[in-house]
Amino acid sequence: MNNTIFKHRSIRRFKSNPIEEELLQQILEAASRASTCGNMQLYSLIVTRDKALREQLLPCHFGQQMVVEAPCIVTVCADIHRFSMWCEQRDAKPAYDNFGWFVTATIDAMLAAQNLALAAEEEGLGICFLGTTIYTAGEIVRTLELPKGVIPLTSIVLGYPDEKPELTDRLPMDAVVHYEKYKDYTAAEIDELWAEREESELTKRLLEENGLPNLAQIFTERRYTAQDNLNLSQSYFALLKERGFFNQ
Amino acid sequence: MNNTIFKHRSIRRFKSNPIEEELLQQILEAASRASTCGNMQLYSLIVTRDKALREQLLPCHFGQQMVVEAPCIVTVCADIHRFSMWCEQRDAKPAYDNFGWFVTATIDAMLAAQNLALAAEEEGLGICFLGTTIYTAGEIVRTLELPKGVIPLTSIVLGYPDEKPELTDRLPMDAVVHYEKYKDYTAAEIDELWAEREESELTKRLLEENGLPNLAQIFTERRYTAQDNLNLSQSYFALLKERGFFNQ
Repeated sequence: MNNTIFKHRSIRRFKSNPIEEELLQQILEAASRASTCGNMQLYSLIVTRDKALREQLLPCHFGQQMVVEAPCIVTVCADIHRFSMWCEQRDAKPAYDNFGWFVTATIDAMLAAQNLALAAEEEGLGICFLGTTIYTAGEIVRTLELPKGVIPLTSIVLGYPDEKPELTDRLPMDAVVHYEKYKDYTAAEIDELWAEREESELTKRLLEENGLPNLAQIFTERRYTAQDNLNLSQSYFALLKERGFFNQ
Repeated sequence: MNNTIFKHRSIRRFKSNPIEEELLQQILEAASRASTCGNMQLYSLIVTRDKALREQLLPCHFGQQMVVEAPCIVTVCADIHRFSMWCEQRDAKPAYDNFGWFVTATIDAMLAAQNLALAAEEEGLGICFLGTTIYTAGEIVRTLELPKGVIPLTSIVLGYPDEKPELTDRLPMDAVVHYEKYKDYTAAEIDELWAEREESELTKRLLEENGLPNLAQIFTERRYTAQDNLNLSQSYFALLKERGFFNQ
């Protein structure tokens, strides 16, 4: 397993072969074995293989071709609907339509999603998580006909890889791990943690292409601008309310 | 890996042996290999081994003894602080202090958390996720001295297992998986999905102990009451604002 974890790279080019049915079932079952709060399983996995439907999802993922090139996309959703429906049928008053359970459902959904990703990679499939999902979650709700109480969190494109990308770098472990308590960073430590990445050939190429003085500005001025961030926040929060996750 | 995934059970009783340093490092590095939005790694892992500090964390986890019996607890946090600090040092204006990036950071943190859990289990360790973390997140912030821009999401107790619990049941796969679009449940389907669990010996024992007519009411009347859910939602959302994740 460690081997699978340490070999992970996101795959964005896929062969068109379908995923064998038995293999897909095994991967989905792997997802369901993850820990879940109170064993409530407050998530749903929407497995979309139909090409026409994936074409409808394509603009939701900003036209990234892997959505139609790979044979399968799994939309991972927080789902308080199913559990609430069960409670109502048993004269038990459900009260999961609030922010606390959105957070809990999101945690559970993502543990399941990572199981799914690793089980797929273990069997030679490639995967890519799509951060675009929360930007266009309202449109995905309509396309996949999600009822109230179900909201998309991320999507996983799934298929046989048609590329072998390099392993992506990570910040040094000192960046993300703290011992005992949080040890805040000095300015010098921040410089040091990002030094290797800032000096890389990839960064140099990006700066040249974008005409910007440093890598941080690639993030703030190009990839994730303040205005885009604000739009995302407001639209996703509005959707959260509309979908019944903020009745408090 | 599939073997590790399919053998997962939450462990709540631990031997006191410490985790070998090299093994702990490998597990933490496994966490860092998970996918992350824009490779931004917007999370921190606080690894607490000091006994006195774990005793301080104990009430945050409702007195669950594993917090002090196991040698290690990892508090998994969404972290926009480190990345924002880097941006500011580069004259790049960070704008991650909003809800969209709380969701993104939470997704990334949980993918890393599940890598950590599986890497640990692969090497014979046991783990338990603590849902208590979001209930007492404000107190955890103070105990672990988390700066603004860092908020706890979950915790993972880590150590050598001192019990061999049975595998926990899950709902049938039909419950969590939908093909193509979301297929809403009929009342009969809901009954069917929960039938096995409702008829189990465990459920019968729970109903007798609690003097309640059905399993759903164990959830709504005992485990997660409406008032507790509302308190959690309001306190965690207030903390989100206070910690700088809702400046919009």
